This record gives sequence, structure tokens and C-alpha cells, in this order.
Amino acid sequence: MRLPARMHSDRRLVDAALRRFLPRRLEVPLTVRRAMVYSLFPGGKRLRPILAITACRALGGRVSDVLPAAAAIEMIHTYSLIHDDLPALDNDDLRRGRATSHRVFGEAMAILAGDALLTHAFEIAATHPGGSGLAARKMRTIGLLARAAGVNGMIGGQVMDLEAEGRPFSYGTLLKIHRDKTGALISAAAQIGGIMAGGGRRELLALREYGDAVGLAFQIVDDILDREGDPDRLGKTIGKDARSRKATFPALLGVEGSRRRAEAAVGCADRALRRFGRRGRVLGLLARFIVDRVS
Amino acid sequence: MRLPARMHSDRRLVDAALRRFLPRRLEVPLTVRRAMVYSLFPGGKRLRPILAITACRALGGRVSDVLPAAAAIEMIHTYSLIHDDLPALDNDDLRRGRATSHRVFGEAMAILAGDALLTHAFEIAATHPGGSGLAARKMRTIGLLARAAGVNGMIGGQVMDLEAEGRPFSYGTLLKIHRDKTGALISAAAQIGGIMAGGGRRELLALREYGDAVGLAFQIVDDILDREGDPDRLGKTIGKDARSRKATFPALLGVEGSRRRAEAAVGCADRALRRFGRRGRVLGLLARFIVDRVS
Repeated sequence: MRLPARMHSDRRLVDAALRRFLPRRLEVPLTVRRAMVYSLFPGGKRLRPILAITACRALGGRVSDVLPAAAAIEMIHTYSLIHDDLPALDNDDLRRGRATSHRVFGEAMAILAGDALLTHAFEIAATHPGGSGLAARKMRTIGLLARAAGVNGMIGGQVMDLEAEGRPFSYGTLLKIHRDKTGALISAAAQIGGIMAGGGRRELLALREYGDAVGLAFQIVDDILDREGDPDRLGKTIGKDARSRKATFPALLGVEGSRRRAEAAVGCADRALRRFGRRGRVLGLLARFIVDRVS
Repeated sequence: MRLPARMHSDRRLVDAALRRFLPRRLEVPLTVRRAMVYSLFPGGKRLRPILAITACRALGGRVSDVLPAAAAIEMIHTYSLIHDDLPALDNDDLRRGRATSHRVFGEAMAILAGDALLTHAFEIAATHPGGSGLAARKMRTIGLLARAAGVNGMIGGQVMDLEAEGRPFSYGTLLKIHRDKTGALISAAAQIGGIMAGGGRRELLALREYGDAVGLAFQIVDDILDREGDPDRLGKTIGKDARSRKATFPALLGVEGSRRRAEAAVGCADRALRRFGRRGRVLGLLARFIVDRVS
């Protein structure tokens, strides 16, 4: 199967899993469930869960074993978007071409819907599927997921990002911010695919190298798109990074320098995949897709 | 040991565990860690983790096995206070006798510190202690904790509470709001103590009945204290429930009727403890403490 068709079919798997793992209607207050659904669907590229599924397949695992964790990763990603968009943080009105959660449901409900998605992600990762043989793998997945999403990862990166606004920054700081804010969860997604497939130490290490490189490439391209992307295709306000004087790759390396850095990261990802031979092919195509994307 | 001394020594255990399980200094941004610490210490009564520890002891479990989960429960409780106090929610300036998190660190950092505590709780519950023999128990703990904190529990209750403000409400609605908003996490704490001790189905059921009753008693007394407690001892603004026309027990049953309802709940808790005989003595004293407290 070629990559676009594969991504399309995996996206449907992810969407179906997200629907299946949502809290049951009538068991929870309508409004908060509606706010959760609003931000989850139609959703973006589903890149993180697709990475988890692809890594799981590459290591010969069963897709059904990784789907709960894949859905959990997407819920955590979605919660982070809702909270980042809040007036007290980035104060964004537009996300994926639609009004942001707090614009539609009010600030209180947006805060609670984000909290709910984050919490629900861990419930899913812990309780589906039931096989106790997977308990140790699931435990490792939850630990890695929480670390990638927490102060050592996404939240830490967000804090550094806020604190770096409007100040001079070094290449080291920039790398650290991006690695934590965006890279950690993307890398965790690839590793979790491997963990749920029962991968060995060296395989997981290779997935980590691959994931770190892909996470970096993703963020560099994100920075470039914020500067010269098409707002209609992106579905969000562009040029915000420059206006709020954020620490970005183009601000430090220029657009061309940033592109070269992203290409170098894809090279690292490809080298990490050598261990998997032909089994790593789709992971390689995904890395390529990430730097070539226009939205 | 008498209850006050026992609670005092367990409180020290909990505080030490919270310190031990905090993210390491220098590995995470200073500000967010400082905001986490500010809300965690000196802290309140540590009632939830003490319930978990006491239930674990009652079933013959090792305290060291339950401490990570106990710390996780307190972190989740603390995150919920930070987010509830936010301007978009209850807009409170005072908590435990000090300025609330957003008054000290600003709204953005308070949102992120809350997110960080919630996320870190799951990391702790999944990664400490390492024994793989506990994997199934830890998995069950995480599932229960997430459910109690999520849309089927605390967050769902908070949403219903917000939506009920200023409207007429029935006794059924009131019970449902309180059970979810406060009761679920308190009950989960007691059950988690039992789970980590390796309790059987009937023991866990008894702990659930006990926990549900204690959770209800706790919230009724909280409502009464908001109406006629001493603000200096409580360390928070009182009379807010009445001003924002919240659904409370005294509003529906009067103060005397509410006290009788709380006493009845303690009776239920005591009946649930019969299964444990003498081993349940401290749990019974805790239930008594909860209705007699003045702060």
C-alpha cells in the first residue's frame, strides 16, 4: 500500500478508536462530552497515533494492542491544543479552521474539557484492552506517556516557550524547548508502538532515535509554515510566532537554514531505521511526509 | 496509637513521599516546579492519601507499596483545587490561608501547574515502585484513579456543579453532584489502599461502600463549614456557596438536617467496616474524624 492510502486507512482506525473509547453518552454531563468531541473531531493529521500504529506494525505487533494507547496519545495532544489556545496562554481564536474551544464553550468548559481529555487518556491506556499479559507493557506505556506529556516534556517545553518570548535565545535553548514541547510526545508515540509490540531494548532505542529526529523535523517545519504557510490550508492564524517574538528555527537559522536542518533530521531518522530493514519502510515514508507537508 | 498521633505520623509519610516523587530540580523549568510545590506544601489534612494508607494497612498490605499511589491521589486533589480556583471557574483568591496559585504565579502558570500535577500523578503511579509483581495492581489503581478524577467523577461533578448554580435542584441531583465531585476521589483513595494491599473482591467492595459513605459525609460537612465555619481555621473564603447559589446540603436540608445526614453516612461507613473486624478500627476513627472536624 502507498503512503497516502495507508495514512488514510490508519486515520480511519484512529477515528474509530477515539469514538469507541470516548466516555459513554448519558453517563457523563452532555456539555463536557460535547466539548471533548468538538476538539477531537474532525481532528488533524492524526500523526502521533499513526506513528504509534506504524511502529507497532514494523515490530510485528498487533494493531489492536496499540489502539488504546494511540487514542490516548491523540487525546493528550488535543488537550494540549485546547489549553494552549486559552486566553491566558496563546489566546488563539482559530484552530484547524474552526473557532477554538474556549470561543465556543467558554473558558471554564475549555479548561475542564482539556482536563477531561488528559485524564481520560490515562483511563483508556490503563483499562483497554483487558489482557493482563499486556499489564507490564501498558504500565511502561503509561509511564512514558506521562513523562512525555509532563514537566519533563510537553508542559516543561510550553513553560520554557512562554518564558523565552521576546528574549534573545541560543540554538541550545531553542532545541531544548522544541524537543520538550513537541518532540517528546511524537517520540513517545513511536516508542509506545514498539513497547506494545513487545520490542526489545535495541529496537526501542532505535525507535527513540527515530522519534526524536522526526519530532525535531516536525517542529522545524511547523515554524516554517507559521512564517510562510497558507493560512487556509493550515486552518490557524499564521505569523503569530514572529509577532509574539517566539523562539523559532527560522528566526535563528533563516528559512533555508531551517529546511536544511529538517532534512538533516530526516537523515538521522533514516539511519535509526536501518536496524529494521524493509520493516521500517513505512516509518521512513512518514518521516519524509512530515518534512514535505504543507499543512 | 491514638488517631491524632497516627494521622500526624501518616501525614509526615505523605509529605515525605510527595517530596521524593516531585520532578527533580534542574531537570524541569524552575517556575512550574515552584508553582507545583507552592500548592502541595504545606497542604491540608492529607485526608485522601491517609485513607489510602490506612486501608492498605487494614488489609495487611505494605505501606511502601501504596505510597506512590497515595502521593498521586494528593497531587490530583491539589491540581483540582488550582483549576477550580481559576478566575474562569470559582475565581477564588484564598486557599488554605494563602493566595491561590493564579494570584501568585499568574493564570497561565496556574493552568500549567495544575496540568503538570495531574500528569505527574500518573507518572508516579505507573513508575514507582518498580516491582513488576505489582504491575496488575498498579494498572487497576491507575484505571480507578483516572475514572474517579475524570468525566465520570470529579470533572463531571464540577461541570454539573457549575451548571446547577442558581437553579432549583432535587436531592437526587445534589447527591449525584457531590458523589462525583468530591466523593469519587475519596472513595477511590480507600479502594486503592485495598487494591495495592492485594485485597479480594469482597474486601474491595466493602472499602468502596465505606469510601462512598465517607466521601458523602465529608462533602456534607464541607457544605456546613462553608455556611458556619470559622474562616481563619478554614483558611478560605466562606459563604461563597450561598452567594453563588450553589447546590448544597444545608440549602436543601438545613444545617440540622444536613448533620443528621452526615451521621447516617458515618453509620453506613461503620457497617461496611464490619467485615474487617478489629482491623477496620482506624478506618472507623477516620470516618468519625471527618464529621467532627471544624476545618
